Amino acid sequence: MDYLGAERKKAEFDVEDMKIVWAGSIHAHQLSDRISKLVANDPAFRKDDRTMLARKELFKNTLRKATYAWKLINELQLSEEEASKVRFYVDEPAFTDLHWGMFVPAIKGQGTDEQQKKWLSLSYKMKIIGCYAQTELGHGSNVQGLETTATFDPKTDEFIIDSPTLTSSKWWPGGLGKVSTHAVVYARLITGGQDYGVHGFIVQLRSLEDHNPLPGITVGDIGMKFGNGAYNTMDNGVLRFDHVRIPRDQMLMRVSQVTREGKFIESDVPRQLLYGTMVYVRKTIVMDASYALSKAVCIATRYSAVRRQFGSQNGGPETQVIDYKTQQSRLFPLLASAYAFRFVGEWLSWLYTDVTQRLQAKDYSTLPEAHACTAGLKSLTTTATADGIEECRKLCGGHGYLCTSGLPELYAVYVPACTYEGDNIVLMLQVARFLMKTVSQLGSGKQPVGTIAYMKRIEHLMQSHSDVQKPQDWLKPSSVLEAFEARAARMSVACAKNLSKFSNQEEGFAQLSADLVEAAVAHCQLIVVSKFIEKLQQDIPGNGVKQQLEVLSGVYSLFLLHKHQGDFLATGCITPKQASLANEQLRALYSKVRPNAISLVDSFNYTDHFLGSILGRYDGNVYPNLYEAAWKDPLNDSVVPDGYHDYIRPLLKQQLVPAKL
Amino acid sequence: MDYLGAERKKAEFDVEDMKIVWAGSIHAHQLSDRISKLVANDPAFRKDDRTMLARKELFKNTLRKATYAWKLINELQLSEEEASKVRFYVDEPAFTDLHWGMFVPAIKGQGTDEQQKKWLSLSYKMKIIGCYAQTELGHGSNVQGLETTATFDPKTDEFIIDSPTLTSSKWWPGGLGKVSTHAVVYARLITGGQDYGVHGFIVQLRSLEDHNPLPGITVGDIGMKFGNGAYNTMDNGVLRFDHVRIPRDQMLMRVSQVTREGKFIESDVPRQLLYGTMVYVRKTIVMDASYALSKAVCIATRYSAVRRQFGSQNGGPETQVIDYKTQQSRLFPLLASAYAFRFVGEWLSWLYTDVTQRLQAKDYSTLPEAHACTAGLKSLTTTATADGIEECRKLCGGHGYLCTSGLPELYAVYVPACTYEGDNIVLMLQVARFLMKTVSQLGSGKQPVGTIAYMKRIEHLMQSHSDVQKPQDWLKPSSVLEAFEARAARMSVACAKNLSKFSNQEEGFAQLSADLVEAAVAHCQLIVVSKFIEKLQQDIPGNGVKQQLEVLSGVYSLFLLHKHQGDFLATGCITPKQASLANEQLRALYSKVRPNAISLVDSFNYTDHFLGSILGRYDGNVYPNLYEAAWKDPLNDSVVPDGYHDYIRPLLKQQLVPAKL
Repeated sequence: MDYLGAERKKAEFDVEDMKIVWAGSIHAHQLSDRISKLVANDPAFRKDDRTMLARKELFKNTLRKATYAWKLINELQLSEEEASKVRFYVDEPAFTDLHWGMFVPAIKGQGTDEQQKKWLSLSYKMKIIGCYAQTELGHGSNVQGLETTATFDPKTDEFIIDSPTLTSSKWWPGGLGKVSTHAVVYARLITGGQDYGVHGFIVQLRSLEDHNPLPGITVGDIGMKFGNGAYNTMDNGVLRFDHVRIPRDQMLMRVSQVTREGKFIESDVPRQLLYGTMVYVRKTIVMDASYALSKAVCIATRYSAVRRQFGSQNGGPETQVIDYKTQQSRLFPLLASAYAFRFVGEWLSWLYTDVTQRLQAKDYSTLPEAHACTAGLKSLTTTATADGIEECRKLCGGHGYLCTSGLPELYAVYVPACTYEGDNIVLMLQVARFLMKTVSQLGSGKQPVGTIAYMKRIEHLMQSHSDVQKPQDWLKPSSVLEAFEARAARMSVACAKNLSKFSNQEEGFAQLSADLVEAAVAHCQLIVVSKFIEKLQQDIPGNGVKQQLEVLSGVYSLFLLHKHQGDFLATGCITPKQASLANEQLRALYSKVRPNAISLVDSFNYTDHFLGSILGRYDGNVYPNLYEAAWKDPLNDSVVPDGYHDYIRPLLKQQLVPAKL
Repeated sequence: MDYLGAERKKAEFDVEDMKIVWAGSIHAHQLSDRISKLVANDPAFRKDDRTMLARKELFKNTLRKATYAWKLINELQLSEEEASKVRFYVDEPAFTDLHWGMFVPAIKGQGTDEQQKKWLSLSYKMKIIGCYAQTELGHGSNVQGLETTATFDPKTDEFIIDSPTLTSSKWWPGGLGKVSTHAVVYARLITGGQDYGVHGFIVQLRSLEDHNPLPGITVGDIGMKFGNGAYNTMDNGVLRFDHVRIPRDQMLMRVSQVTREGKFIESDVPRQLLYGTMVYVRKTIVMDASYALSKAVCIATRYSAVRRQFGSQNGGPETQVIDYKTQQSRLFPLLASAYAFRFVGEWLSWLYTDVTQRLQAKDYSTLPEAHACTAGLKSLTTTATADGIEECRKLCGGHGYLCTSGLPELYAVYVPACTYEGDNIVLMLQVARFLMKTVSQLGSGKQPVGTIAYMKRIEHLMQSHSDVQKPQDWLKPSSVLEAFEARAARMSVACAKNLSKFSNQEEGFAQLSADLVEAAVAHCQLIVVSKFIEKLQQDIPGNGVKQQLEVLSGVYSLFLLHKHQGDFLATGCITPKQASLANEQLRALYSKVRPNAISLVDSFNYTDHFLGSILGRYDGNVYPNLYEAAWKDPLNDSVVPDGYHDYIRPLLKQQLVPAKL
């Protein structure tokens, strides 16, 4: 029985074609489809009990799944692309994420050929398990402030790794607490009494024989984190070194070296090469944002079509909550955002290729722009996704608060993305710095490139007036782009003007930083809006597919325009009348989304296993399954609860003995 | 050692006096101080292990605490006021909340004198434990749509309580799942074949001898909810009736009765009396919002003074993160909001007294306004508090994600307030309905009263222009009020105009509902702003106390003005230049808050036990305590984790046997 069948019949586009657009290509779609079903159909990967497990059971269960997945990958002789999809669809944070996602890439990026040969061959077979030990108890964002030391001892040709203070304890690295045998440890390199700043070192942490920590090493788990299940499957760890010695050749030496004599040398490998990795990581984070947000939106959309409340006439069925405009005005912008982030992520893949090619050709001219753009997009998409998941949970009313809705865990497991790989506010300030530099160089002959190229038209943008006269005018990409460009440009210029009033620029930047963040957000929203529009200029096959995406693109940009109308009005880019027309057009677009909503989330092609939500079930059969799942809670093991005889009965029988623990 | 001592010395006001202002009176302050310390100093109420316990242990532990607290209350012969403070400071959702907070008040409000005599005497001694069974699997907001039936059987003089469908299962009531022996059950009254709508019935659920469910009753827990610890200490339950018979006199009959013959009669007790209870409950929710938000703000403020990052010069200490303007611009508005909500809650206590007196005098004229105002304030303050707690968590960076920060649990336990006692969006739509009615009656001679009285000046407000010319002008309460009144009035009038274009008003209301919610929010923000300003027109003793509150009042209103500048600009209440001046003044106010920030949160007078946060410790000694707490996680029971031999070792040793579960 398909309770959403009637909804599916309303679709005005071909869902199978949209699935390919969402996946990025036929190949990508087929791969995802095959691997997600492989995982979903294997009971070993069951996850519906995850939020009920106590920490130790939960963690042991994750070890089991990760090991089982690795065995499966080997037995089925999966490619690296397939293997990474398996880990993705298993959908449970584990030490393997850090091993494959941080430890191996760090060695690849920062190790010499010789180091790569030695350590990667061990890592690829998982004969060692590694993690990435950077963050400390006292230092996160400020990497240059790390306190762990690596002091070269020329007598023995070794580095002495040490944690000189409590705050120098490594703190947070995933996989560190209980599993990793090795780590790339970031520490201040000291040689000849001089401090050469932070560098990476490969350090063995545990015996490969019995898994006990090696002498001088204290390691453990840092304890429970936000949410049930969620990141508690991961052993984020604490690590202290008491003068631990490692051979000199375990310093990662691709970019700088220490010689046998203890001399520090910078190699001629340009440091900019490391930026390529950063673009890659941030591209992945933006893609992950679109996955996480689309999961939440899929759950909330399906449930909004199942759930009915009020509006019954003559004993007929009540109104589906998805038909309420208040529901649509919160849900559909998030649906549009999921698609928007997906496409900007796709564009970042192109940018990564472009940056890599330029780096190889020693062309560093686009790096500052690529750096600012990826920093801003990471910040923008992760913030919007975290907020969006929680909004989806609220859109599911009371039942969204149940773990069986899947949404509490989805939020808790996602929200660290706002902090890791650069705190979102710190990143926006980096974008703002780039914007201020760009403004200051306008007219100097240095041409803005890439996503900041609109600044070339600064004189026009400072004076332009929107030509919108009726609601439909807001459907024209040129009108939308012009408004977003003018807003971003004017906010940057206004900040630059205020900055110029300060004699000390750094002081001014600090004082105005809240405004600068707002300008940076405006710039980044423009990027997402423009990449969505660019995507629609491509040929997109499939019956009705492009038309649907045009509607979503409109929803995304007009929703932002309405939400931030203060910016647009304060800078005089549009008039109050035009803001009101945009809102009117936005309402009209919601009505166009409505009949397609279920099919638009079906196009994500997620299995019920991956969604992990009773409210988001494909078949819409919510209530009987919610009811059945409740009885699985451990509290329902017995009708009369543990504690009845000790606490409830004495209370009822007025037989409380004098207070004791 | 007081790591925040230097911060405390900076205060420009008397903290002891501010504590009294925060508590509401000397008596309230002394009571809170005494009871919070009583609870904090009793190891029976320890809660730092809460997020590590599995569901069954967690629940049993809550039973222990609740029973222990009851015993303490009796032994110390505490007053009801004191007892309720004990439950508050124990700070753990439990069945007793529903027994005292919903079951007892329902009987008091809806029971006849005879019913009260019988059931309250049992309840006051806890010889029975009751809960409030209203919400069903299929119906939350739409109470009139409940499906449970209570059919009168004149043959036996009984009601037959039944759950005719799966969706009629009671679902969510706290205390229901495992503890309650009785419930007030809401069901459709059917007599003589006619449906008289939803009424309350006292139903016994479990045997008082062995706690087993009575025949025909299926009852259990609905399973895990959002967060670690949090509301999982509560047995929110599911309940089904299979033709359960109760005596006729267990229908709550104060307002309507069923006679021995099965005749339905409405008594002459006016239904409006029930509104008094609603005002009371919402007042409590607004007060709770200020408590929850102030806890989060206290934690984030203290930690922001402890945490340092970047900005070290010549090897000196780094900058306290509280000194960053980006941190201030997110944190200080929340600090101001906590005070604002506290004062509006205080005002609601006055409103409750006023409404009660008028009801007794059969004056129902202010009820619609009181209803709209309390609905809106419930919605506004709970939404802002939930978002604010999560913002505070993010302001604590990575460490805010640890359960030992206290913030994840505080969020998870608080956020249901956005849904229960009226979904926040549904409530704002009720406010909007009241606003549209008020606008439509302008000029009809019916005078707007209370919080909507500003509408009397509608002609002036539609045309007025703000007189602000320099940043300091925004410190004048009259300028702030005028701007907020004009904005609220104009948004309501704009909605009313758009509504009038629809031939069907209900259809128009549905189509425009997102805009209507925005107008309702504007009205409710005005209430909070104006009540803060009114508070400051009173005599407030204490050195520097009033001045500090004036600064916070300014922060609250100018922050809202900046955040919603789109509203103010779109309606032409202020110019872009005036918006910019407000922002400038806001920045200046942040600098005035800064030296007082720690003392402003000290004024909440919270014990470390109540805060439940290592980051928020009074002494600021964060890092050693974070480090020490980590080792208490069950995963650290052994250095080599459970699962090493089964999973990690075979992986490292390349000895994986063929895949199995």
